[in-house]
Order: sequence, then structure tokens, then C-alpha cells
Amino acid sequence: MTIQSLTEQIRKKSSFLCVGLDSDKSKLPSSVSQQLEAQFVFNKQIIDETHDLAVAYKINTAFYESDGSEGYQALEKTVHYLNEKYPDHFTIADAKRGDIGNTSTQYAKAFFEKLSFDSVTVAPYMGQDSIEPFLQFEGKYAILLALTSNQGAYDFQTLNTVDQSLYETIIATSRTWRGAERLMYVFGATKSEYLANVRALAPKSFFLIPGVGAQGGDLASVFHAAANEDIGLLVNSSRSIIFASSGDDYAEAARRAAMDLQQQMKKLL
Amino acid sequence: MTIQSLTEQIRKKSSFLCVGLDSDKSKLPSSVSQQLEAQFVFNKQIIDETHDLAVAYKINTAFYESDGSEGYQALEKTVHYLNEKYPDHFTIADAKRGDIGNTSTQYAKAFFEKLSFDSVTVAPYMGQDSIEPFLQFEGKYAILLALTSNQGAYDFQTLNTVDQSLYETIIATSRTWRGAERLMYVFGATKSEYLANVRALAPKSFFLIPGVGAQGGDLASVFHAAANEDIGLLVNSSRSIIFASSGDDYAEAARRAAMDLQQQMKKLL
Repeated sequence: MTIQSLTEQIRKKSSFLCVGLDSDKSKLPSSVSQQLEAQFVFNKQIIDETHDLAVAYKINTAFYESDGSEGYQALEKTVHYLNEKYPDHFTIADAKRGDIGNTSTQYAKAFFEKLSFDSVTVAPYMGQDSIEPFLQFEGKYAILLALTSNQGAYDFQTLNTVDQSLYETIIATSRTWRGAERLMYVFGATKSEYLANVRALAPKSFFLIPGVGAQGGDLASVFHAAANEDIGLLVNSSRSIIFASSGDDYAEAARRAAMDLQQQMKKLL
Repeated sequence: MTIQSLTEQIRKKSSFLCVGLDSDKSKLPSSVSQQLEAQFVFNKQIIDETHDLAVAYKINTAFYESDGSEGYQALEKTVHYLNEKYPDHFTIADAKRGDIGNTSTQYAKAFFEKLSFDSVTVAPYMGQDSIEPFLQFEGKYAILLALTSNQGAYDFQTLNTVDQSLYETIIATSRTWRGAERLMYVFGATKSEYLANVRALAPKSFFLIPGVGAQGGDLASVFHAAANEDIGLLVNSSRSIIFASSGDDYAEAARRAAMDLQQQMKKLL
């Protein structure tokens, strides 16, 4: 899926909502957790109830790997279901990968070819040759961690390097990499005071913004600081949507929570 | 497995060799690749031929994920085989994970509980609260990327922050984290000129050193720069061992390559 199609979907749906499928097996409603393939069943329900409100789905690989190869199968089935039934949605493997070149190539193949995700989140620490392998796939995107939503972001990301912070150096440097037109950036909603600054460093890139909802980030501040002329934002919400209710009405509750965010987005747009 | 048992094994075998199972499916000898569960069959042969020469095995998750859930099963079977048949070997999931707290907890459970690895490599970019969840498991270790073996290491890792390089800041800061006694560090063999420096920052920690062999790092320089009184080193070699021959004699060739390194280690010890 291309950036252009994603932007069209955002305008069409008045939504830049990304639903995060952090489908922790231990938190599934009991009516679901007793079923075979519980994670996949749950995801399918959530997707069916929110697809018209969201433009993207983000699958957090940790919540599947923690269940071993069975969890990995649930992940495979979920992205396959999305690609088959809702091909207009942008899919994100939230995997935070990054390694030496030949290993990064394997990760890129895993997520772009084997699983057919549109994008994958990547960690910058290992530099250019660890990220470029992800940027060589037509219509596929790597989403680079810039300033993350957690407290630990202040440990290293905001350190001064030369005349700017590390995360600014990373963004500026990454703009020079081969395939940089296929780079997006992760930027925590909890750090909106930094966002305007970053937008200047990557004016045309999409930003994936986690941290609205359970982590406390504010949608309007994010939008005013970082939207560009093509919007250029995907705001992700995971737990506040998928676990809006722990009862049997989880899917309807997820829909209400998604709609609440989408309505706020519509006003901002 | 504890650090103490690992050190005992190193002394007993006169070896600090870690064999990297980067078992790229497309590179397996044809006699193996036609078999069912080819990756696992290959790994089993390599392990059986090298177990007396090596004290650790490192499984690079990318080379399994690239084959989807089937690859994930090969990974599961490999570590299960190691734990059953060779419980005295230290196992490393080379996965380079790291995310916000609740996600890192899921990764820790995936690698330490579900798969029973002794350790996992982690990326520092997201800071303290992204790593500490990995440090809360008795007898389990997180191996933090410090200075990696690739060219991209010079993009960010060696930038100056305050009065030292970023990787030095990361090591020094990480020593203050809860559970720091369960932290090890990744340090590329291709960067041995920096190693002595780093040893001073973490005098008692184990270093996992990739980059000897295919990547060109030198064993003796590494040893002289970074061994401590308990040795405190695991030197990993992947491709130079497991793909020493592309023919049917791959297992014997792997053994010869492993023995060559082990003999060099014995001299150094």
C-alpha cells in the first residue's frame, strides 16, 4: 500500500486512527479465551467492529511471540485476514527490529514478504546499514523510532549530540539514507512539546504516534503540532480500544472507543 | 544458567566460543534443505558436532521469522533440543528487542519462559524502563547492544554526548538500573580498539563479541583488550562455522572451524 493511498483513506474516512492489536492473551474476555485460536478470534471481532473508523492496524509482535509458535500463527492469521478482507487498511508490524545488514534483510523479508505487512517499526541504534535493507521494497515502509512515549526516552534520546538532541540527529541523518522516501517515524504522543521541531526535520514524512489513551497523550496537541498538508499522521490507540470492556461486549465497546477518537479526529480535520 | 556455571564451563573446555545459528534456509546444503524441518535438522547436526568445543549457542531470530510460523517452530525445537540434550550450554536469543515496559515484559516472557533461553540481546534506545523488565528473571540475562560490529555503529553509537560517547553513556547509565547484575553487553570484535575502554566501565560484566570470522574481527586483540579475571567473554562466530562447507560435509566442516577457534582460545587462556 502506498502513502498516497493511505492519505486518500484518511481523507475519505476523516480518520487517522490506527488500532493497536496488543491482544494480550491473559486479558482476553473469558468468552473468547476459552475458544480455539483465541487471539485471532478476538482480533477478527475488533477489526470487524472498527474497520470503518480506522485506517490502520498495528500488530505488536511481543503479544504473539509470548505464546511461541502458536502465537506466531495468530499473528500470521491476523495480518492475512486484514490483507484479504480489508486491503485498504495500512498494516504495521510493531516489532522494533534492526540488526546488521544481512540480518535486517531477513527481518524485512519476514515482515514484508512472508507476512505481507505494509510497514515495520525499526530501532535506529545500529545506524544506516541496519535500516537501509528495510527501505528497498516497493510500497513498503520502515517506521523509525525517533522519540518514544515512555519515560526511558529521556535516558538517551534527548541527550545532546553536537548541536542537537540524539533523536534530532537520527532523524536528520536518516533523511540522507537510500530509500528515505520510504521512512516514517515513531513519535510518542506524550512528547508533543517536541513535535513541531521534528516536523521541520521531516516535513513530508508520516509520523506514527502511539501514546494517546492509556499512556496519556493528547490528540489535539499532537495534531496541531505535527499535521502537515497531507495530514501525515497515524495516531495509534491500543489498550483503550481493544480492552475498553473486559466483558462479552468487548467488540461493541471497542467500536465506541474507536468512534470517540475518530469523531475527535474528524473535528480536527 | 548462571554466570558462575558459564565461567566454569569456559575454564573446563578452554573455550569461550559461541556458535551462531544464523541458519539461513536458502543457504542450507541441498541434502538438508530437501528434508522436512530442514532448519532444525541442520542445527541439530551443527550442535552435535560442535557442543564439546563451544560453551554457548546464539540463535538469530531473523533467520527463523523469515520463514513465518514454520520458522518459529524450528527456533522452538532448536532451543528445546539444546535445553534437553546440552543443558550446560548458555543459550542466547539474538533478537535485539526493546519496547515500552508492558511490551518488554511480554518479550521477556517469550524468550525466558516460553522458549527457555538463558539470555536475549536487547537494544538500548528506549532507555531504562524498556530494559529493566528483562532483568527481573532469576538466572536469566539481557545482553545490551553497546558498540556493534557493523559500519552503521559510527552513525550514532560513537557520537559525543556530554563528555563521552553515546555507547559509553549507555553502559555507564545501565550500571545503575535495577537488576544490572543480570546485564551483559554486545561489543563488536571489529571495534577492538574501543574495548579496553569499555571494560573499565563494566569490569565484571560478560561481553558477547560478534564479528570474528566473516566480519573480520581479530580474536587475540579482543581477548587482550577485554578479558577480565573470570574471562568474561563469549566470542560468537556464525557463518564461518555453520557455512564452512556448503556440501554434505557441512557438519564436519563446522566442527573443524569451531575447533580452530577453540584451539586459538585455548592458547590465549
